[in-house]
Amino acid sequence: MSLLTVGSVAFDALETPFGKTDKIIGGAATYITLAASYFTEQNNLVAVVGGDFPQDMIDLLETRGVDTEGLQIKADGKTFFWSGKYHTDMNTRDTVDVQLNVMGEFDPVIPEAYQACQYLMLGNTAPAIQKQVLERLAQRPKLVMLDTMNLWMDIALDDLMALLPLVDVLTINDEEARQLSQEYSLRRAAAKIMGMGPKTLIIKKGEHGALLFQGERIFFAPALPLEEVFDPTGAGDTFAGGFIGYLASTDDISFDNMKRAIIYGSAMASFCVEKFGTERIVNLTDDEIRERVLEFVSLASFEIK
Amino acid sequence: MSLLTVGSVAFDALETPFGKTDKIIGGAATYITLAASYFTEQNNLVAVVGGDFPQDMIDLLETRGVDTEGLQIKADGKTFFWSGKYHTDMNTRDTVDVQLNVMGEFDPVIPEAYQACQYLMLGNTAPAIQKQVLERLAQRPKLVMLDTMNLWMDIALDDLMALLPLVDVLTINDEEARQLSQEYSLRRAAAKIMGMGPKTLIIKKGEHGALLFQGERIFFAPALPLEEVFDPTGAGDTFAGGFIGYLASTDDISFDNMKRAIIYGSAMASFCVEKFGTERIVNLTDDEIRERVLEFVSLASFEIK
Repeated sequence: MSLLTVGSVAFDALETPFGKTDKIIGGAATYITLAASYFTEQNNLVAVVGGDFPQDMIDLLETRGVDTEGLQIKADGKTFFWSGKYHTDMNTRDTVDVQLNVMGEFDPVIPEAYQACQYLMLGNTAPAIQKQVLERLAQRPKLVMLDTMNLWMDIALDDLMALLPLVDVLTINDEEARQLSQEYSLRRAAAKIMGMGPKTLIIKKGEHGALLFQGERIFFAPALPLEEVFDPTGAGDTFAGGFIGYLASTDDISFDNMKRAIIYGSAMASFCVEKFGTERIVNLTDDEIRERVLEFVSLASFEIK
Repeated sequence: MSLLTVGSVAFDALETPFGKTDKIIGGAATYITLAASYFTEQNNLVAVVGGDFPQDMIDLLETRGVDTEGLQIKADGKTFFWSGKYHTDMNTRDTVDVQLNVMGEFDPVIPEAYQACQYLMLGNTAPAIQKQVLERLAQRPKLVMLDTMNLWMDIALDDLMALLPLVDVLTINDEEARQLSQEYSLRRAAAKIMGMGPKTLIIKKGEHGALLFQGERIFFAPALPLEEVFDPTGAGDTFAGGFIGYLASTDDISFDNMKRAIIYGSAMASFCVEKFGTERIVNLTDDEIRERVLEFVSLASFEIK
């Protein structure tokens, strides 16, 4: 089934304890579509970049099967730029610089050919823009997934609250879940957030794995303990892309299949953090992914007699 | 098979965001033997208390099948006392008061009847005392498990390093693993710590679950997301007691059985935190434990096609 991803395509400059980069390709939608490209063949992108965005990166996305008809190029503008520095524990980071550039006026135009998409991934951006995407789709997709962040809870909470009833799956991290719900217990937080709209909630806990909530059901997916986390940038987006890409490719939105999708998403994220930026997720093989997923099986499986 | 636990039996005074207690019964060996009592029938305790320790608590331990022949009562002394206050997130706490009292001169005498024990749990106390226990056993148990803490890494590291080659399973938390190994990555930390002696390492991550390492094998057990963590005191000891109690009762120290044991330990710990002190783990039923373990199965299981 076809997937539509709307979100940022950007330049990032990163500094981690292992090194730093100049401007490299980043952005939520970049990570999402790259991760999804290993699962679904109809992988449509709506985003905006400036005239400074390199054609070879667009070519790379297309090589990976990403349809870039919806990628607007503002020749006179500059691409969204984010620069960040990670602390030693890699779980926290400081934003060093943000230049919204063309993202400041992002008008998400949906090409006609994308209208029939069955799976919609609303990558992290302003809730008002995310809502516009839904309004511009002639028919509601089978599954709408939303990523957001604490920034929007701080400055656009009303917009976010108006959006939540319109989505099926929300993905946020543990801190954000606590902020949104005003509950410390993630179980209570989940119940409260599902009461705000989304029937399914994924709480990402970084190196501690992820929790999937749906009604009374809970599933916990571990993160793979890695020798080294080189650069966590994009891990959450890569996770989301693997998750919804797997759902779209199997066209099965049962809870059991969502559990599998979380494992695939976690496997993709575990690759992402092994190198800077998108480096590790641009040319994975199916065998590598399969092998990584089997590591998760081995990591998490036990049998009670 | 018979289990021998050596460690503290104490008074605790606790304050959590939910309330506070006067002196209640605590101590590592109390939690360990209580948790183990649901699994193994030969549950032997070596510890020391003062004349102020209530007989009805000793009676309770005995009712739960704990053999208290090795519990020394120093009529003229006072029982070890610890007082702590938890922060709002329940993951961190401040020690308000510590009075070692009779624990300050603890001489772990092993009754003759305990000499044949096959499973030994060295609860958290000074490494020199833990080593003495091993030296006083005529034959080495089949499995020796050690709990320790950052305090001993700070003030008795040489003693601890001399002890590590003598134990089979070490259980510590993530912070302690990082301190002991000087590695941030838990995977690297585990490899380094196993190089110090113990072939099996359990890294406890509190609300984030636990990792079991043995050679190249890794197993991850989630913690059950609870509505409310009322009092985390003793959770780690209860976990250890459930783990080694299950191993002793099944007398199977294979990796697969250790995975099951971790789930049983986690289930016991999930009960422990639901009420103050030992309140929740003194009268559980087998059905309650079974049901809780099945919640872990449901929480963690998935199937890859």
